[in-house]
Amino acid sequence: METAQRSGCPINLTLEVLGDRWSLIVIRDLMFGNRRHYRELQTLSEEGIATNILADRLRRLVECGLVTRADDPEHRQKAIYSLTEPAIELVPLLVQMGAWGRRHLPASEELSIRAELLEKGGQPLWDELMDELRFLHLGAPRPADSVLGKLQAAYEAVVARRRRRARRTG
Amino acid sequence: METAQRSGCPINLTLEVLGDRWSLIVIRDLMFGNRRHYRELQTLSEEGIATNILADRLRRLVECGLVTRADDPEHRQKAIYSLTEPAIELVPLLVQMGAWGRRHLPASEELSIRAELLEKGGQPLWDELMDELRFLHLGAPRPADSVLGKLQAAYEAVVARRRRRARRTG
Repeated sequence: METAQRSGCPINLTLEVLGDRWSLIVIRDLMFGNRRHYRELQTLSEEGIATNILADRLRRLVECGLVTRADDPEHRQKAIYSLTEPAIELVPLLVQMGAWGRRHLPASEELSIRAELLEKGGQPLWDELMDELRFLHLGAPRPADSVLGKLQAAYEAVVARRRRRARRTG
Repeated sequence: METAQRSGCPINLTLEVLGDRWSLIVIRDLMFGNRRHYRELQTLSEEGIATNILADRLRRLVECGLVTRADDPEHRQKAIYSLTEPAIELVPLLVQMGAWGRRHLPASEELSIRAELLEKGGQPLWDELMDELRFLHLGAPRPADSVLGKLQAAYEAVVARRRRRARRTG
């Protein structure tokens, strides 16, 4: 996808495409948050991504063939961003990244529950999630179950539990 | 490991530590090439890492607790770099990175065979490899088999096959 690679090592090539601190954050938000418009990606960003960085990374991801940009049929004058099949196949890598971060870095409880469930679910759950992403981003048939729905419900349960705990101790 | 995180999301935290184009390359060479001295890491680098970048990334990896630096008992005046347990547990992430790069980017045949075997071996092979890395880097007992030895043999077989093919067609 790039013109002059440093080497043909597959780990190196992946890092040449995705090895900056923001590209995979943008893919994460498209993937797990289904944030498909520029405005959502910017305003809902937990990390407070700057508008110029977001615009640059989206442009690069489109150039690399990981994201497509189209007019949104439901919103005039708005573009909708979608993951491509290669980007959807990043699920196992993002799962391992979340699993490692959860274990070795000071991850917050509510932002870790999805990583935990995805790690424990293993390849069968990742395959289910990839099928759901193919439905949401590529127009494939809708799967029977929603992995994203289950992850969101687990996240909301943690948030509610933390609120109750804070009220008790507050 | 850093002072002010952008968010507590475990994917984000991992990218804050490892999300540049070189940190994981250095870990890859320590891990799969057992390159433990600065000079080897620099001169054998497939990607031609610059000396100042290598020095900076090694320093940061030591600060983050992913690499340790010690005097090498076998070479006076030389430092030996070792992976820590958290770095060894990056094996599944690096495997997924290699698997994705092999599938979606123009990876070279000889540099892809290890990625292929690691992907196919799955968690049992990753566990074996991590035990071997604990032996090489942390002084744990030597495992019965050497995964790195098998990967190296497979790599050399591909190189030899390509040479024969080049002689026939050359």
